[in-house]
Amino acid sequence: MSINRIMRHLGEERSVIREIFEYGNARKKEIGADKVFDFSLGNPSVAPPPEVNAEIARLIAEMPSVQLHGYTSAAGAPEVRAAVADYLKTKFGAPMSTERVYMTCGAAASLTIALTAMSEAGDEFVVVTPCFPEYRVFIEQAGGKVVTAKAAADFHLDLAALERAVGIHTKAVILNSPNNPTGVVYGRAELKVLAALLQKKSDERGAPVYLIADEPYRELTYGAEVPFLPNLYPHTVLCYSFSKSLSLAGERIGYIAVPDGCADADGLFAAVCGAGRSLGYVCAPALFQRVAAKCLGKSGDIAAYRENRDLLWNALRAYGFACVPPEGAFYLFVKSPEPSAKAFCERAKKYELLLVPSDSFGVEGYVRISYCVAKPTIERSLPAFAQLAKEYGLI
Amino acid sequence: MSINRIMRHLGEERSVIREIFEYGNARKKEIGADKVFDFSLGNPSVAPPPEVNAEIARLIAEMPSVQLHGYTSAAGAPEVRAAVADYLKTKFGAPMSTERVYMTCGAAASLTIALTAMSEAGDEFVVVTPCFPEYRVFIEQAGGKVVTAKAAADFHLDLAALERAVGIHTKAVILNSPNNPTGVVYGRAELKVLAALLQKKSDERGAPVYLIADEPYRELTYGAEVPFLPNLYPHTVLCYSFSKSLSLAGERIGYIAVPDGCADADGLFAAVCGAGRSLGYVCAPALFQRVAAKCLGKSGDIAAYRENRDLLWNALRAYGFACVPPEGAFYLFVKSPEPSAKAFCERAKKYELLLVPSDSFGVEGYVRISYCVAKPTIERSLPAFAQLAKEYGLI
Repeated sequence: MSINRIMRHLGEERSVIREIFEYGNARKKEIGADKVFDFSLGNPSVAPPPEVNAEIARLIAEMPSVQLHGYTSAAGAPEVRAAVADYLKTKFGAPMSTERVYMTCGAAASLTIALTAMSEAGDEFVVVTPCFPEYRVFIEQAGGKVVTAKAAADFHLDLAALERAVGIHTKAVILNSPNNPTGVVYGRAELKVLAALLQKKSDERGAPVYLIADEPYRELTYGAEVPFLPNLYPHTVLCYSFSKSLSLAGERIGYIAVPDGCADADGLFAAVCGAGRSLGYVCAPALFQRVAAKCLGKSGDIAAYRENRDLLWNALRAYGFACVPPEGAFYLFVKSPEPSAKAFCERAKKYELLLVPSDSFGVEGYVRISYCVAKPTIERSLPAFAQLAKEYGLI
Repeated sequence: MSINRIMRHLGEERSVIREIFEYGNARKKEIGADKVFDFSLGNPSVAPPPEVNAEIARLIAEMPSVQLHGYTSAAGAPEVRAAVADYLKTKFGAPMSTERVYMTCGAAASLTIALTAMSEAGDEFVVVTPCFPEYRVFIEQAGGKVVTAKAAADFHLDLAALERAVGIHTKAVILNSPNNPTGVVYGRAELKVLAALLQKKSDERGAPVYLIADEPYRELTYGAEVPFLPNLYPHTVLCYSFSKSLSLAGERIGYIAVPDGCADADGLFAAVCGAGRSLGYVCAPALFQRVAAKCLGKSGDIAAYRENRDLLWNALRAYGFACVPPEGAFYLFVKSPEPSAKAFCERAKKYELLLVPSDSFGVEGYVRISYCVAKPTIERSLPAFAQLAKEYGLI
């Protein structure tokens, strides 16, 4: 064998989500796109806010193109980094400095860079399951070991499980709120207990347990507060992406911010720069750095996601399905009426309903429904969900 | 220590080139920008071709923005991959297929992904020195070992040195032509000998020695032919970037192409996809994928680089400096008139000439001059070069 086997496997193994998505595309060709209800992918379905294209138009009209499209500093254009730091300071009263903002190619880059910056031989990284399946790929690429802590029955934090999971080899805990796949938003009270736990563990071993805040869904909530983690726990590394808030998933733009109070903040930030360099991220895309800086705090039409959520959640509950109350992101996490979520998904397929079984997220017995689709798709899907419920005797 | 030491070091150690560039910026503030002659960076100085901004304007006007800025497939938008494959087939008569084109975030990403896809424990990667200093960073990040083969005295290939460097552990040879830092373009004859050598080594060990063609400067030549390596050696992995040809260095857009005749082409391509996934490259920036596809074969005003080259080369030779004949890219590689290139660069600084000593490229006794600057900068710098030559008694 003359290529890397792990990489080949990662390339050949289609993720379960992609597999379902491709099945859906094929099926749409067979029976018509309007008859297939594909709830597999988390691709934003609302347009970016109009400020995005307006700023692109302004930049290409007004900024010399050799400067606009040329290299920025590795950490980002100075005015962009300053805008991000100012926004975080103003919006959250957070101790953030321009010098420790690093612009990235989106959430996955934020995570791989942060993990590579931290990870040393023998390090463990704790994830709360169910979680985004790529966490494992990114942690192992960085040379770390994945340790799982199951969420509680309501998919909020199980602090006892986290206490057991965090040990002397734990370099960081990854937290994703609003959560993919459950739609849960962690509350201030549970996060304060977590912060106290991590501080205690840090003190015990004399080295910080970092908290990696993976926050691409921060703006996508339906009333719930999303506490700003650096304000609750100083050793928090903020990993952000504009993919969901600005519907820019394909443009790959986000940032890492290391707060002032973080242990060894300058050393960690240097390691972030080193990891970005080492992984081949020369700088984040220059045009979209500037677009993102202009659109800080803006978002696409989130009201459309709320309408989708309400429509689908109310219908599914009326049909007798048990759903985790969706507080943020654009996912519904629904209990499978039979023990095997895969079997449930197969049965749903008969009604052209494409759902993702929870197994790849690290728990069994649930399905994830991405409701970032056009509203008519949800409307048309409801009779199919009703029939599926009948088949299980739920109605 | 609670962060990764290697990453921290990579982040803290400023590259020599950046160090000089920062010195130049500070110096410009002291004495005026027009009095400092900064030849350190390889940032394109000519504007992108007008088609770039025209296509951006067209896309934001005509394509639904939720689709334009949304995720593409991991390997790239299908129509973009097809356009790249068609271009390579038409332009070079090369055996390229859409299914084995993978869009990347520029040259550094192309290299890190290709290296990560190939590298297994114990693998060696051969580089021809002098070479781009980041090759070492990328190879070591991928878990490989760097083996150097010195170029010949004229900085073309030293086939005997390559024969010695390529052994049973060699996974690939990296070739960069037109070359950074020497400006040399490898000729068809020497490349044919190299191809025969690599084929012989591959046959001996029963596994291919891959050739990684790092080609960001392909279009920047002044008459010399740049033979298309996949046509000379089937096990060539093409790593391309639009940074220099389209002056899009900050936008991070390029591609990897695995030719049809490459050993285990499908397996290698799967490993490329796996490496991209693993390193956090979800997809290449969506807007610029489409812009690049529209601008295939186009380039900025290369004539400006030729004018710069002629002006500077003729002057430096008249002043008695020995230069490698520049056939491509936008670098002049000049012999230091004293043994230490660093000492020569210090002396040049007295005349506000900022040159890069060759040591970080892996050879001693030369300096690199990046002539991708505004022509008036070169014109104003000539008296300084003349004085420097006088100091060495060259004129």
